[in-house]
Amino acid sequence: MTTLKDLSRHLNLSVTQVSRALNGYADVSEATRARVLAAASELAYQPNLSARKLVSGRSGIVGLVLQGTPASMTGDHFLTVIGGLSAEFSRRELQFVLHMADPEEDVIEVYRRLIDGGGLDGFVLIEPVTDDRRVAYLAQRGIPVIVHGRLFGGPAHAYYDIDNAEVGRVLTRHLLRHGHRRIAFLNGSPQRAYSEARRRGHVEALEEAGLPFDPGLHITASMDEKHGLVSAVKLFSGPAPHPTAVIASHLKIARGLVQGLSALGLRVPDDVSIVAHDDQLSDLAATGFEPPLTTTTSPIYDSWAPLADGLARLIAGAPIPAVQHTAAVDFVERGSVAAPRNERPAPRKNHHGDTR
Amino acid sequence: MTTLKDLSRHLNLSVTQVSRALNGYADVSEATRARVLAAASELAYQPNLSARKLVSGRSGIVGLVLQGTPASMTGDHFLTVIGGLSAEFSRRELQFVLHMADPEEDVIEVYRRLIDGGGLDGFVLIEPVTDDRRVAYLAQRGIPVIVHGRLFGGPAHAYYDIDNAEVGRVLTRHLLRHGHRRIAFLNGSPQRAYSEARRRGHVEALEEAGLPFDPGLHITASMDEKHGLVSAVKLFSGPAPHPTAVIASHLKIARGLVQGLSALGLRVPDDVSIVAHDDQLSDLAATGFEPPLTTTTSPIYDSWAPLADGLARLIAGAPIPAVQHTAAVDFVERGSVAAPRNERPAPRKNHHGDTR
Repeated sequence: MTTLKDLSRHLNLSVTQVSRALNGYADVSEATRARVLAAASELAYQPNLSARKLVSGRSGIVGLVLQGTPASMTGDHFLTVIGGLSAEFSRRELQFVLHMADPEEDVIEVYRRLIDGGGLDGFVLIEPVTDDRRVAYLAQRGIPVIVHGRLFGGPAHAYYDIDNAEVGRVLTRHLLRHGHRRIAFLNGSPQRAYSEARRRGHVEALEEAGLPFDPGLHITASMDEKHGLVSAVKLFSGPAPHPTAVIASHLKIARGLVQGLSALGLRVPDDVSIVAHDDQLSDLAATGFEPPLTTTTSPIYDSWAPLADGLARLIAGAPIPAVQHTAAVDFVERGSVAAPRNERPAPRKNHHGDTR
Repeated sequence: MTTLKDLSRHLNLSVTQVSRALNGYADVSEATRARVLAAASELAYQPNLSARKLVSGRSGIVGLVLQGTPASMTGDHFLTVIGGLSAEFSRRELQFVLHMADPEEDVIEVYRRLIDGGGLDGFVLIEPVTDDRRVAYLAQRGIPVIVHGRLFGGPAHAYYDIDNAEVGRVLTRHLLRHGHRRIAFLNGSPQRAYSEARRRGHVEALEEAGLPFDPGLHITASMDEKHGLVSAVKLFSGPAPHPTAVIASHLKIARGLVQGLSALGLRVPDDVSIVAHDDQLSDLAATGFEPPLTTTTSPIYDSWAPLADGLARLIAGAPIPAVQHTAAVDFVERGSVAAPRNERPAPRKNHHGDTR
């Protein structure tokens, strides 16, 4: 039987070089890798699994653990995420796997079992919550993990995130510039790190303008249409003064909001201005609204490559601070914001004699 | 630091026994396992990954490799499959992962990488094709694999399958009993092992009745509505004699078939009898048809448990012949079959003077 040593002798390379080439390490040149693979095939080399595992200490497999289907993911969105991550890891010579954990089981126990068997080299963790136990556990075990979303507080961790505080700041500042002072914010669950970051950016922008944060105007719930619809009724059918503008943390919330406002006989932007964040992964488009929505935007599918890249670098030994990246968000002005009614010149009669 | 040896001494068990208990082997009694886990927790045992890997040679992780999304799976069906397999493996102390392979890449190379890293202990393989290269490769490597669907020919392999030949036999015999002689069969892709098995059963039943197999009445395509619709047009708008009955290999095919027949002004079962196989995983129900369809039936979700069980047994060392199981199919008669027109008494005038 051909051993790793035979191969190494035949190729005049060190055992470590041959092993790293066979295991698809990025620090091996394509030419060397091709030469090693050709020789391995020629000499009918069969790797000894345990030996290989001891040499590299790695399986070349990374994973994503989900506990039940994420509420935010319909089946097709789900496939987009899995497919996107798979392709990016594959380009980096890592095999990406998905594990669906039993929703009844302690997820830490699930990670423990996946790690203890030595089968997985590292993890992508999506939808982190503030004070995330999973991140803390993986940090404690020294297992490479990259988080899709930055956590504030807790152990140092690698992450790729968009600048969610900037989302809150930019949308709030835009409304303030148009004269709005009573701004409602329909945000995601307060347990989600990104919701909290957006809230902080919102509060900062209000403070810049010398305005207090009104907790009664900040409504958190899961990011769906119902949130927008229920909040619209809550905000605009109660006692005045009503908000003059609303920030929606997701286009789905915005869609519910628009439906609610319409049912209440309120028009966008004449009666209420709206802005939203658009991650471009739902079936909705900001341009599909009437009027098109002014948004911050950052395509969520742009995150697969940096996540894969970051985890590959961590596994290869990169220090955590080198794998912390916050991406900028874009701002696109469309037609969903006007000055609030009381700041607009009093309506004049038009040539038909109507006030509109 | 507490070692495996310390644990073994403390418990008065062999190192192997402790290791097998910690790794969730099925041959360790629940009582022993509970005792070992309690001691491991009490003595703060932290497993040494490489050592554990050497002792057991296993990661405790099994996988499913898909190359692109299977055509037969919509997003939600997909989640049903993944969720069902995950839950069943979890019950057997195995972690189930999904790997989505690049459709552009040679899938054998993908398996090779997943195996060589030592990260995966075994595989479930779904939708096998006749003469499946993946099954042959895994057999050659000696990697445990259980196939959802029996292959005929090729290396010995573990499988769980329904009796697909029986599906073809039962549906054909039922139509023959009602007097049908020109029976069309809308089958799945000829590359799929189950399609070929169903065809063989169909041919056997015809032979029992002394009838030849007419290849012109056997139409294969992917199992969707289009297949049924296009085949209906092909079979019933061409030159007579037309078939008097049709077998659909899937309820989706049956739906397209019914639509096609309806467009051609043909009624079920007055003009054409229909039977189908129902795997109860599509959004369709055989009882939702008008008239309700006579079917063979075998819920596909009943297969997750035997698949997980079979792979767990293979990994624990069971011989392949012990993990070959063909499940019976049920037959449910409903209202979609009548005698062919030419075998029925001539229509008589009813009290309205009409012939119907």
